[in-house]
Amino acid sequence: MGILVVGSVALDSVQTPFGKRDNILGGSATFFSFSASFFNKVDIVAVVGADFPKSDLGLFRKKGIGTEGLEIAGGNTFRWKGRYDYDFNTAHTIYTHLNVFSDFKPSVPERLKNSEYVFLANIDPDLQYNVLKQMKRPKLVACDSMNFWISTKKKSLARLLDHIDIILLNDAEARQFSGESNLFKAARSILKLGPRAVVIKKGEHGVLYFSRESHFVAPAYLLETINDPTGAGDTFAGGMMGFLSRCKKINDAEIRRSLIYGSIMASFAVEDFSVGRLARLSKREIAARYKHFRKITRF
Amino acid sequence: MGILVVGSVALDSVQTPFGKRDNILGGSATFFSFSASFFNKVDIVAVVGADFPKSDLGLFRKKGIGTEGLEIAGGNTFRWKGRYDYDFNTAHTIYTHLNVFSDFKPSVPERLKNSEYVFLANIDPDLQYNVLKQMKRPKLVACDSMNFWISTKKKSLARLLDHIDIILLNDAEARQFSGESNLFKAARSILKLGPRAVVIKKGEHGVLYFSRESHFVAPAYLLETINDPTGAGDTFAGGMMGFLSRCKKINDAEIRRSLIYGSIMASFAVEDFSVGRLARLSKREIAARYKHFRKITRF
Repeated sequence: MGILVVGSVALDSVQTPFGKRDNILGGSATFFSFSASFFNKVDIVAVVGADFPKSDLGLFRKKGIGTEGLEIAGGNTFRWKGRYDYDFNTAHTIYTHLNVFSDFKPSVPERLKNSEYVFLANIDPDLQYNVLKQMKRPKLVACDSMNFWISTKKKSLARLLDHIDIILLNDAEARQFSGESNLFKAARSILKLGPRAVVIKKGEHGVLYFSRESHFVAPAYLLETINDPTGAGDTFAGGMMGFLSRCKKINDAEIRRSLIYGSIMASFAVEDFSVGRLARLSKREIAARYKHFRKITRF
Repeated sequence: MGILVVGSVALDSVQTPFGKRDNILGGSATFFSFSASFFNKVDIVAVVGADFPKSDLGLFRKKGIGTEGLEIAGGNTFRWKGRYDYDFNTAHTIYTHLNVFSDFKPSVPERLKNSEYVFLANIDPDLQYNVLKQMKRPKLVACDSMNFWISTKKKSLARLLDHIDIILLNDAEARQFSGESNLFKAARSILKLGPRAVVIKKGEHGVLYFSRESHFVAPAYLLETINDPTGAGDTFAGGMMGFLSRCKKINDAEIRRSLIYGSIMASFAVEDFSVGRLARLSKREIAARYKHFRKITRF
């Protein structure tokens, strides 16, 4: 069995210095699944409202993403509106309307409980834990979180961390969670809570990986055109998990490659709004960019 | 002939979250020369006041740094006082007393005009140009600059760029100078002014290198202890130029290595205040960190 992601499917309104779009397909499960779909079969567990466009549903199906676990509830789909200035690492939220997402109690369809690779995207850590308990025996579980849960549900998040393999956080979240300004120390402090690895995403500044045995640092793929950074982190996670799900054995070398694939998938995502770039991306382009990434980082 | 650096020798007072020091040895020529001295013979052209401590002069001599071009003028040495908070990429200047540095008209001693590798540290671009005119036939010239000269002497800086090989700027300076927020576009715009290469230093986020033919990106060496980031950029330049001055032929591969040596030298410098760490550093430690850098970035 392939990859399962639990998270949000949303309609975003986004403004960046390079354009403005309203009600475009967004959400953590969306970006993750589009990204991972280039590597393996992905299924999503999420909720949308009755207002969710059929055309957007069609985009998932076109990518072969399983929507058996996508509940369509009465009410409106989760909506987020935000703005980015030239500093693409900072999103300025204009509003967040949780709508049907506020009552989301993710229930994993029986068939998908056998999924071997599980990504718990950024939702209430108690719900993440609850989803994990529904799974039979996943080979690899990764999770994301955010500043809101770190301030309001730190204990729940800590409990979750003792049951997962990889936690992905951005640099600000890692600092907030650990109380350490130095990212090395932050990662070490988070590792003590139980996860096998900590991935710290620094957006355009690259990514850091820490396990008990080793660490790895990588710059981001350098881009000339960034139109919309929304979803970059979840796209990263999708590339990483997608690649890992295809590895016969997950060792240090494969983990490093997975982080580069994550970076590359994110670099495509930010070239366009919503999943525009991912929707028209080819495996050939991914392979070419991976090769180029090697070329511009080798010494 | 070896390496010549023209820049400042200063007495700094620095406060960081990890300590406070008064009147410690600083200045661009200082950090550059300490760093480059691990690779080749370095001479400095700079000015200090009659108040400059003999013990600090001794530190230069101990490193074998040539001080024939270090003028001792009547008056006080250049003094800078600054503070860093947890964001080590931003220095908050408390005061800058140029003192004898305000009348600095660098004059290169006859013997040193044959230097093959020249670093024009951050001073008035007209003075940088003037120094360059004094040199006989340098093999490689690099320069640094800062926001103040970019706003007040942009034309002079542009003239200089048409006569040098490599310009080093930090990311904010590259954006300011080019008017481009994207660093790829910024570098390309600066390359049009004539230099063979642009190095964009991003502090703890690594470094970008651009020539007309290629580009290279590298993360910074990850540190657990950063006590004082003052001088990191000049130390970087010293490692880069030092390494390049030892290369038989400067090609793309050697340039990449030089940037990693630059990063590594900077990573040592920031571990202590002033040139404390550089003063007690060994070549063996440099080699070990280079090897470790490879290890944590290879994929």
